[in-house]
Amino acid sequence: MRFLLSLILFAALAACNQPTPKTTQENMKGKYAIAIHGGAGNLVKMNLSQEQQDAYIHALDSALLTGEAILKSGGSAVDAVEATVRILEDCPLFNAGKGAVFTHDGTHELDAAIMDGSNGECGAVAAVQHIKNPISLARKVMEKSEFILLHGAGAEAFAQEHGIESADSAYFFTPHRWEQLQDAIEDDKTELDHSEKKKASNDNAPREEKFGTVGCVALDQNGNLAAATSTGGLTNKRYGRIGDSPLIGSGTYANNASCAVSCTGKGEDFIRLNVAHEISAMMRHKNYDLQQACDSVIHGALKSVKGRGGCIALDSQGHIAMPFTTSGMFRGSIDTAGQKTIMLYEAP
Amino acid sequence: MRFLLSLILFAALAACNQPTPKTTQENMKGKYAIAIHGGAGNLVKMNLSQEQQDAYIHALDSALLTGEAILKSGGSAVDAVEATVRILEDCPLFNAGKGAVFTHDGTHELDAAIMDGSNGECGAVAAVQHIKNPISLARKVMEKSEFILLHGAGAEAFAQEHGIESADSAYFFTPHRWEQLQDAIEDDKTELDHSEKKKASNDNAPREEKFGTVGCVALDQNGNLAAATSTGGLTNKRYGRIGDSPLIGSGTYANNASCAVSCTGKGEDFIRLNVAHEISAMMRHKNYDLQQACDSVIHGALKSVKGRGGCIALDSQGHIAMPFTTSGMFRGSIDTAGQKTIMLYEAP
Repeated sequence: MRFLLSLILFAALAACNQPTPKTTQENMKGKYAIAIHGGAGNLVKMNLSQEQQDAYIHALDSALLTGEAILKSGGSAVDAVEATVRILEDCPLFNAGKGAVFTHDGTHELDAAIMDGSNGECGAVAAVQHIKNPISLARKVMEKSEFILLHGAGAEAFAQEHGIESADSAYFFTPHRWEQLQDAIEDDKTELDHSEKKKASNDNAPREEKFGTVGCVALDQNGNLAAATSTGGLTNKRYGRIGDSPLIGSGTYANNASCAVSCTGKGEDFIRLNVAHEISAMMRHKNYDLQQACDSVIHGALKSVKGRGGCIALDSQGHIAMPFTTSGMFRGSIDTAGQKTIMLYEAP
Repeated sequence: MRFLLSLILFAALAACNQPTPKTTQENMKGKYAIAIHGGAGNLVKMNLSQEQQDAYIHALDSALLTGEAILKSGGSAVDAVEATVRILEDCPLFNAGKGAVFTHDGTHELDAAIMDGSNGECGAVAAVQHIKNPISLARKVMEKSEFILLHGAGAEAFAQEHGIESADSAYFFTPHRWEQLQDAIEDDKTELDHSEKKKASNDNAPREEKFGTVGCVALDQNGNLAAATSTGGLTNKRYGRIGDSPLIGSGTYANNASCAVSCTGKGEDFIRLNVAHEISAMMRHKNYDLQQACDSVIHGALKSVKGRGGCIALDSQGHIAMPFTTSGMFRGSIDTAGQKTIMLYEAP
């Protein structure tokens, strides 16, 4: 009889999604983890040569190792995500910083955000044109401003007052991005990170499109989470469009009580669903684990609105999830056991 | 024995916050509701003359009646929130549209957002300087743009292409806002909607501060929710600061599955907590009712970070919540029974 009662009680509680036992804080001592992305897209695998793939893998690896070194030596998650994103911003392969795409007017408008999961502090910048590393400006906004989101010339004035490195327009010029803009203007289309022009003879062929944006999430040895995202947005973007990357809760979010998330993809879907915050909310309010929450939001809600993209996410136990709805997402991670993974397409 | 089992099962389920029975869709047929706010703040009641209070009440009443007329005649929630916010934007009493506060540079940077809870569509503008009714531009962005958030000159170019009414800087000049800017510059302080200057002889007196922003949430006869928010932001704001109002999920959110929310207050706290989306998340994931979710977020999370402000919220059963952490919030509502309420300070 007592056994029967216990069984029923157990079943009832289990049905209510009670939290599953988690690794204790003690077990996490000295552990750290990191994940990065360099954009997602409907990438046709064959369109990238082996050499090009190797270049992306090498760049992702360099970024990961930079963040790992900071975490390994006891540095903070905030330091790790900023330094890692800076490496990706400085690499012309990615649509952020140096490799940012062109707007319709032939300029660059860069967005970035950073969030410290230990205290909810965050900083973000939108549409800055002359900042070498927008993620470092976002961090300065977090630490030195009473505001969270600064934009345009005002954000650049703040940068100047705080010694943030600027860069002139020439720094951001890359020939392949310029070509992409000309193609996009010719097609009168707002493009993602890059799209291979359809061949006139084969208009139904799958179009390679890659949503730029780079991002990093990290867990440090003190159990603190942080997230950072940086992007050049959409090629040929107009009208002062701001995407999800600099918007806290949409493209970037961190909260020690749940997870750190950085998104990549067609930003509008991530904004309307508040993707990053929704993943956190499912963990906090439904007791979902990280993978369940990510699957529910990315493979559930996002897919149901035909949203294209994905995210990297990390919880305070070092679990890593990297779900996406596209055929590929450039990504990498080092888990708490030191296991490194770098992938461009779907898992084999 | 069977009774005992049932009792235990019931207790276990109750502990899991199962949904409480709700009014059925059928009972809501032909019902509508609306709520508005005109800013919150640490208002010292005696600082407003009876005449001034009456002016605010009259303006709130006019706005409410505009929205109600649309809902009563079967109009959509989106139409109702846009039209209602336009009335508040056109009134120089409120910090939005005509009555917007000045930036540090003596300009106006207006933010607005609108969201349709029936389909998740949304539109927003930030830092527009020459748009008479930013909420109508936000709606045009929602309906005619592939983007969600446009800013600055780009947003104004979009407005021009779509026949949105512009206004020159002189339209937004109001003497009391200009004085507030001079006071704020003198104090070297970023101010809210308005602050009465401390008297030199009485520096410890409570300072009257009012966070501007206007907003509206509505439920139409088809059971659809919508939310709209518009603001001039902070007096003496600098560096291209963007607040929570135009950020979907922070200051503005609507989702038929949960609620419509419009916030007012010191925007940064609303951004870091994703206040509007968090209220929705608590309803969707914890089965909280509207009041529980609002109390938990505004009187719980927001208060715990010393966040100042509040929100108006409405669910698809027409329940209305208007919580705030400040001593006052200018607000009004008409519930599904036609009961109208307008209040400036705490409930009596």
